Amino acid sequence: MTTQQLLEQIKLKKSFLCVGLDVDLNKIPQHLLALEDPIFEFNKAIIDATHDLCVSYKPNIAFFEAYGIKGWVALQKTINYINENYPDIFTIADAKRGDIGNTSSMYAKAFFEDLNFDSVTVAPYMGKDSVEPFLAFENKHTIMLALTSNEGAFDFQTLNVGGNELYKQVLETSKSWKNSENLMYVVGATKAEYFTAIRQIVPDSFLLVPGVGAQGGSLSEVCKYGMNDKIGLLINSSRGIIYASKEADFAEKAREEALKMQQEMQTIMADKF
Amino acid sequence: MTTQQLLEQIKLKKSFLCVGLDVDLNKIPQHLLALEDPIFEFNKAIIDATHDLCVSYKPNIAFFEAYGIKGWVALQKTINYINENYPDIFTIADAKRGDIGNTSSMYAKAFFEDLNFDSVTVAPYMGKDSVEPFLAFENKHTIMLALTSNEGAFDFQTLNVGGNELYKQVLETSKSWKNSENLMYVVGATKAEYFTAIRQIVPDSFLLVPGVGAQGGSLSEVCKYGMNDKIGLLINSSRGIIYASKEADFAEKAREEALKMQQEMQTIMADKF
Repeated sequence: MTTQQLLEQIKLKKSFLCVGLDVDLNKIPQHLLALEDPIFEFNKAIIDATHDLCVSYKPNIAFFEAYGIKGWVALQKTINYINENYPDIFTIADAKRGDIGNTSSMYAKAFFEDLNFDSVTVAPYMGKDSVEPFLAFENKHTIMLALTSNEGAFDFQTLNVGGNELYKQVLETSKSWKNSENLMYVVGATKAEYFTAIRQIVPDSFLLVPGVGAQGGSLSEVCKYGMNDKIGLLINSSRGIIYASKEADFAEKAREEALKMQQEMQTIMADKF
Repeated sequence: MTTQQLLEQIKLKKSFLCVGLDVDLNKIPQHLLALEDPIFEFNKAIIDATHDLCVSYKPNIAFFEAYGIKGWVALQKTINYINENYPDIFTIADAKRGDIGNTSSMYAKAFFEDLNFDSVTVAPYMGKDSVEPFLAFENKHTIMLALTSNEGAFDFQTLNVGGNELYKQVLETSKSWKNSENLMYVVGATKAEYFTAIRQIVPDSFLLVPGVGAQGGSLSEVCKYGMNDKIGLLINSSRGIIYASKEADFAEKAREEALKMQQEMQTIMADKF
């Protein structure tokens, strides 16, 4: 999917919501556990109930890997289900990968070719040649960690490197990499006041924003400081939507929560455009 | 496996060699491709031919994920084969994971519980709460990236943060994390002169050292600057060993290459102890 196609979907749906699929078997309705593939069945129900309210799904790869081969099967079924039934959805493999060049190439192959995701999240620590193999894929997007939503973000990301904080240096440096137009960035919603400075470095890039809801970030604050004239934001919500209910009505309740966020987004877009 | 048990194996085998299993179907002997699980068959042959010369195997998870479900099956069979047949081997899942706490917990579960690896490699960018979930597992080890062997290591890892290079700050900070005694670190062999400073910060920790061989690092140089009085090094070689031959004699040739390294290590250990 191209960035332009993503933007068209956002305008069409009046939503820049991404639903995170972090499926923990301990948190899903217990009646699903009797089915052959509870993870996939849960995802399918959530997707069917919310696909018109969001523009993106973000399976969190850890939550599949934790279940071994069964988890990987559920991941493959989930991404295939989205691609076959809702091809206009922007899919994100939340994997935080990154390694030396030949290894990053294999991860890129795994997520872009074998699983056919539109994008994958990567970590910047190993630098240019650990990220460029992902960037080489046309019409695929590489979403690099810049400033994350967790407490540990302050351990290294905000350290001062020559007058700049590390995450700003990461943003700045990455702009010089080959095919950097395929980059997007992870910026946590819990740090809304940082968006102004980030937008000075990457005014046009899409930012994937976790941390709204369960982690405490405010949607309106993020939009105030982070939105650009082409929206430029994908706001992720995982637990707040998918675990809205643990009962038989879980998909319906997930839709209610997604609808609330979509409506808030629609209002913000109407005010701004 | 405890650190003490690993040290005993090193003394017994007179080797601190780790063999990296980066299995690319384009690089293995073509006759294996006719078998049902060529990746596992290749690994099994390499393991059977080298297990007495090395103390560790390091499956590179990307090379399994790139083959989807089949790859994950091959990974599971490979780790099970090692654990069942060579339980004294220290196993490393080379995965470079790291995410917010609840997600890192799921990765830890994947590699420590579901697959039963002794250790996993992680990236430090997201800080303390992205690594501590791995450290919480008793007798399991978390091998964190410090200074890597690739060109991109100089993009961020060596930036000056308040008088210290970032990788040194990463080492220093990590020592205060809960269960930090379960930490080991990745330090690339291509930067042997850096080991002196690293040993001042983490004198006792094991260092996993990639980059000897194919990437150009020198074993004797690394040992000169990086070895401590309990060895403290695991030297990885992947391509130099497993792709020593692309013919029917691949396992035999792999053994020859592993033997060369083991003998060099034996000489170094005899000189030093």
